[in-house]
Amino acid sequence: MKKIAVIIDDIFEDSEYTEPASAFIAAGHNLTHVGLKKGKTVKGKNEGTKVTIDEAIGKASVDDFDALLIPGGYSPDKLRSHYEAVKFVKDFMASGKPVFSICHGPQLLITADVLRNRKVTGWKSIIQDIKNAGAIFIDAEVVEDNNFVSSRSPHDLPVFIKTSLKKLK
Amino acid sequence: MKKIAVIIDDIFEDSEYTEPASAFIAAGHNLTHVGLKKGKTVKGKNEGTKVTIDEAIGKASVDDFDALLIPGGYSPDKLRSHYEAVKFVKDFMASGKPVFSICHGPQLLITADVLRNRKVTGWKSIIQDIKNAGAIFIDAEVVEDNNFVSSRSPHDLPVFIKTSLKKLK
Repeated sequence: MKKIAVIIDDIFEDSEYTEPASAFIAAGHNLTHVGLKKGKTVKGKNEGTKVTIDEAIGKASVDDFDALLIPGGYSPDKLRSHYEAVKFVKDFMASGKPVFSICHGPQLLITADVLRNRKVTGWKSIIQDIKNAGAIFIDAEVVEDNNFVSSRSPHDLPVFIKTSLKKLK
Repeated sequence: MKKIAVIIDDIFEDSEYTEPASAFIAAGHNLTHVGLKKGKTVKGKNEGTKVTIDEAIGKASVDDFDALLIPGGYSPDKLRSHYEAVKFVKDFMASGKPVFSICHGPQLLITADVLRNRKVTGWKSIIQDIKNAGAIFIDAEVVEDNNFVSSRSPHDLPVFIKTSLKKLK
């Protein structure tokens, strides 16, 4: 059983949260939703999926978790304006623990300046931002760079989940 | 009377369209809404403002317009995945005609790779993207770089509109 932090805010891409979350729980792992305010309910972009924030990002420490999931949609854009969120993902990438990023997830990692020379994929609208951040953009359904796993969109979810689960073993 | 193109898609920041649009029309200018599909109705993020697309981006030419407005919200993120939209703003910047960008507007300009060494401001979440694109980011309510005018958020609208109107004289 691994402890997985999910960093999330409003307008997340529903399936990029619900599908990995279900698969992680089914595999016996625990999820903690970290966000801007403990107890706040954040909502998905298309289906209005509701998620309650378990822990404020400022109170969360990488030491308490084994892995990080960054769902996409516009949640990463909202989170990256906040120092604590950027610091949290920066610390996670520095720890070498598994980080799973999908769709717009790299936006948070760009603001944290942790993509330099890392292999990564993401949603097509942010390709130029990924390249400008010094990363090696790869157009593939899943990209693995040590413990860093990234995918492009909901279409990639099956292989994204399968690859992420392997990193949790 | 000047002809102003407004490049817009769903989830635009309502006031960043409605307020400049009203001011431009009040000053005697004409607006043409260019978007992904002629006749489509696109909607604002917060207030559900409806805008009908007058002309498909692929059919629009910079030669037909005197200036370009890029409202923010998540409209620029949606548009920048489309080659025609990126080409249109690239051509506009190359023309030297006035371009008015607010909030997330620079995202389109980053994908078009036209911000190198240009002075620009924008919404705080995209500051790192603006810097990584080689631009000179300035944290001010309005930034002028020749005919390129940019602002950060709806709070900056009065000065953004005032500065933009001057460029239309």
